[in-house]
Amino acid sequence: MNFADRLQERIDALGNPSCLGLDPMLSYIPEAFAERIRMECGGGAGIVRELLARYCSALIDAVTDIIPAVKPQIAYFEQYGPEGILAFHDVVRYARRREMIVIVDAKRNDIGSTAEAYARAFLRESGAELSPAFNADALTVNGYLGIDGIRPFVDACGAEGRGIFVLCRTSNPSAGDLQDLKLADGRFVYEAMADLIHSWGEPLIGTSGFSSVGAVVGATWPEEARAIRKRLPHTFFLIPGYGAQGGKADGAVAGFSESGRGAVVNAARSLMLAWKKHNLPEAQFAEACRREALEMRDALRLALAARPKRPE
Amino acid sequence: MNFADRLQERIDALGNPSCLGLDPMLSYIPEAFAERIRMECGGGAGIVRELLARYCSALIDAVTDIIPAVKPQIAYFEQYGPEGILAFHDVVRYARRREMIVIVDAKRNDIGSTAEAYARAFLRESGAELSPAFNADALTVNGYLGIDGIRPFVDACGAEGRGIFVLCRTSNPSAGDLQDLKLADGRFVYEAMADLIHSWGEPLIGTSGFSSVGAVVGATWPEEARAIRKRLPHTFFLIPGYGAQGGKADGAVAGFSESGRGAVVNAARSLMLAWKKHNLPEAQFAEACRREALEMRDALRLALAARPKRPE
Repeated sequence: MNFADRLQERIDALGNPSCLGLDPMLSYIPEAFAERIRMECGGGAGIVRELLARYCSALIDAVTDIIPAVKPQIAYFEQYGPEGILAFHDVVRYARRREMIVIVDAKRNDIGSTAEAYARAFLRESGAELSPAFNADALTVNGYLGIDGIRPFVDACGAEGRGIFVLCRTSNPSAGDLQDLKLADGRFVYEAMADLIHSWGEPLIGTSGFSSVGAVVGATWPEEARAIRKRLPHTFFLIPGYGAQGGKADGAVAGFSESGRGAVVNAARSLMLAWKKHNLPEAQFAEACRREALEMRDALRLALAARPKRPE
Repeated sequence: MNFADRLQERIDALGNPSCLGLDPMLSYIPEAFAERIRMECGGGAGIVRELLARYCSALIDAVTDIIPAVKPQIAYFEQYGPEGILAFHDVVRYARRREMIVIVDAKRNDIGSTAEAYARAFLRESGAELSPAFNADALTVNGYLGIDGIRPFVDACGAEGRGIFVLCRTSNPSAGDLQDLKLADGRFVYEAMADLIHSWGEPLIGTSGFSSVGAVVGATWPEEARAIRKRLPHTFFLIPGYGAQGGKADGAVAGFSESGRGAVVNAARSLMLAWKKHNLPEAQFAEACRREALEMRDALRLALAARPKRPE
């Protein structure tokens, strides 16, 4: 089944266009929770893997009936070396088993033959020569190299019902250093990237009206998000930057389609560390994450309902 | 010691500005070589890691006294899942132990807090919370997100004597889809990226006259390489695309400085699979790699000597 259709269906079923970002740090794990795992595993080799994987699994368990998708950020696992990657592999598998849609945030990019290797690593049922690779539902990618670095991903999306989200306008403060440069033809660089994304995604538009070749459009830039939506009526948006990065619900929904669909809003730290905001003990991080997830869902619903109706 | 100085010193010592690219596939490993490893390891769990790591180590052993640097492409390891990453970790460690300068080709890019995690993963002595991460000498990165996605890498370069190579003009056929768009101010997008790379790298120019913030400039685009060199007299160039991708010695040296320095030329498949070109049995892949490496070195030396002298 087309990835965009599958994601939209799950969002519709839960009435919640949000995504749980997983940016784990060992220092986020409550001591009592860690101690229990250390006792069970006897400490020693493999403990970092166990800590990271079980912490992320607890967050997934807390929201799997209310949030449709999860976005593990691979950098936060890579910073723990090979053990971190083993944990990452565990988390992707666990999330899929819990029926969450897994969007791996890895922003991969390279020339064609290398992009093929990345596609095998992340978007195929099995990796090279039948190795068990990371097998996610979708992957973030960077389109700086143009179509031949993107085609292997698009091919995997078509063949295996997977998706990609290509960086368009990112959520960080210096996004504009390159992305806002003005082209001779009047477009900004990020608009040119949007037009490339449109052309790459056209063959993979599903019955939902959206393509499995999506775009990353930061929640921190609502003006730009509205402009990009106009250019890209059929593109699924992954909207990061909600919560800890400063994006609010009103801004986050700016990039949704007129019918309030075709987008998923990611929050990581504001969900993972919700116990701070909710004045709960650290040990209740999972309950707090659920409470914050419900608030986020309701805030997005309200913001979508309150949007001024614009002429199509 | 400044990374650019260290790399230039090693290039000067060996009289060879080339780099061994490692893009391993299990299918490249000769059957007799694989069989010996299977016998030693008893097959089973961990065999993919052993095969990939020992194959790459044999290539390293074949050239460590004649080639200054090695560039493992992480995608080729990721496609084998967690075992591939374990092999990648082994290979980085082994290459550094053999005193090769290790440039990890991973083209990482993200917002500031995530880029910090990547910097810990690849450019620090140890990863997060003292985990043993990948600890390379240098990393390729993608600058699409602007300075706050680059600063954590630059900080690690300054603090730990490491380097980065930022994508500028890539070696692939569709490099121009975005990189050749013309800006309103007359520059191409890749020239704007070059100017950003210049400003990011200025604080890290070493005694060699080159900065530890380098640029990736494909061997397949000599015209562009010459133009970028004019803009970036103090930037170290990583020049991929030599050999299998079609780049020749004359084109590859187009990006070197007037004094014939400040650049390193990468070849992967043409070295790894040199036994085909040299009509040697597959079992002699390492000897063939060495023979091809010597030919590549001599071709680059000749091409550098033959360059037309241009007015500074």
